[in-house]
Amino acid sequence: MPLVPILGLAVDRFDAEAVVVRLPWQDVALRPGGSVSGPAMMTLSDIALWGAILARVGREPLCVTTDLTFHFLAKPRHADVLAEARVIRLGRTLAIAEATLRSDGQVEPVAHAVGTYALPGRS
Amino acid sequence: MPLVPILGLAVDRFDAEAVVVRLPWQDVALRPGGSVSGPAMMTLSDIALWGAILARVGREPLCVTTDLTFHFLAKPRHADVLAEARVIRLGRTLAIAEATLRSDGQVEPVAHAVGTYALPGRS
Amino acid sequence: MPLVPILGLAVDRFDAEAVVVRLPWQDVALRPGGSVSGPAMMTLSDIALWGAILARVGREPLCVTTDLTFHFLAKPRHADVLAEARVIRLGRTLAIAEATLRSDGQVEPVAHAVGTYALPGRS
Amino acid sequence: MPLVPILGLAVDRFDAEAVVVRLPWQDVALRPGGSVSGPAMMTLSDIALWGAILARVGREPLCVTTDLTFHFLAKPRHADVLAEARVIRLGRTLAIAEATLRSDGQVEPVAHAVGTYALPGRS
Repeated sequence: MPLVPILGLAVDRFDAEAVVVRLPWQDVALRPGGSVSGPAMMTLSDIALWGAILARVGREPLCVTTDLTFHFLAKPRHADVLAEARVIRLGRTLAIAEATLRSDGQVEPVAHAVGTYALPGRS
Repeated sequence: MPLVPILGLAVDRFDAEAVVVRLPWQDVALRPGGSVSGPAMMTLSDIALWGAILARVGREPLCVTTDLTFHFLAKPRHADVLAEARVIRLGRTLAIAEATLRSDGQVEPVAHAVGTYALPGRS
Repeated sequence: MPLVPILGLAVDRFDAEAVVVRLPWQDVALRPGGSVSGPAMMTLSDIALWGAILARVGREPLCVTTDLTFHFLAKPRHADVLAEARVIRLGRTLAIAEATLRSDGQVEPVAHAVGTYALPGRS
Repeated sequence: MPLVPILGLAVDRFDAEAVVVRLPWQDVALRPGGSVSGPAMMTLSDIALWGAILARVGREPLCVTTDLTFHFLAKPRHADVLAEARVIRLGRTLAIAEATLRSDGQVEPVAHAVGTYALPGRS
């Protein structure tokens, strides 16, 4: 069963400058205390980063994740989590993007992600 | 719905030297081609790294992920994925572990993960 | 011989919101083509990230780097490199900061860094 | 002035399985306490990872670092630091390697590095 339908991700924004993906609040806790799990936030981030690149290069079915680095910054609130992703480098065969995750309505980030995606179809 | 029961992870080994967690082959593809998805491998890695630390420090409910870095190395086979995790530093308030992921029965790794976990209960 | 005096780093800004450290253009090339080397940019980043945290917590001699992740985005110009660092999480025992590096006068970044620093003196 | 001659790095091993680069003990401390600095260990790591890839692909002048992640595990001893690097994936246009750093004569690692290098000349 694919994870993304389970997580119920929704796209709030999708353009060349930024992509925002929403993880609806739901019972996805892996950790004590009922918080949004790290894996759910990692999945959200990967989708948002990937989306930010597709928003720049168009539909590229072979775009694959090469590396991802996450820093978990604060415990999310009992709310949706929004990942806002931007491309920071678009090369011929590699694209690099970063994302900041926030609980809906909050300024302080709950997580940060940066990752590289290979674009083999363009080489 | 928590991700881990969905993924059906199983623990193949759990001792102070290493922890091995198994992701059973199933329809968890997010990417074209029917391969195991990156998010499923990230979830597997986080559980294995966390387990490797718990195998050293005992039940520590407040152990939380601080950072995680993944490198995706090869497309997984149509098989279970095994994550073998080892602690590379056990400090008073931080533990660092790395994991290598392989398709069952293969030598070549499909992914590598390294991460830091905070142990606030020990400070 | 310490690296920082060799590199001739200069602090352009130092306040609670951001710290900017400058790597003067000089013959520090390790790579073909006369570009600023990766290690010089990593050193610059570490100092800027560390500075951003000290600008928030004050003089903390025991603040030590726990992890650092770099992405190299574009070849630097023949110019000074500026690293602008900001704290993205300030906890009791850990601080996390990110930095964007640009060639002087350019908008496009040449590198991105994110790192965690332990603050053992505050635990 | 290039960093590598300053650091006095020496190659202890260079073959297809592993590359070992040595950072001689010297006064390269940036941090209190006279320890080997993080930037010196990052420079050592980058050279060792890069060397491990060149040992596999041959002289490739365009091999450039794409990302690097470091975890600092323990304070180095008053001794040379050795970085042992191995390729964990060799693709057509990307190579990924990891390195473990130890103080000379010690078993416990002092740092871990993993990084991606682009091989544009092979695309």
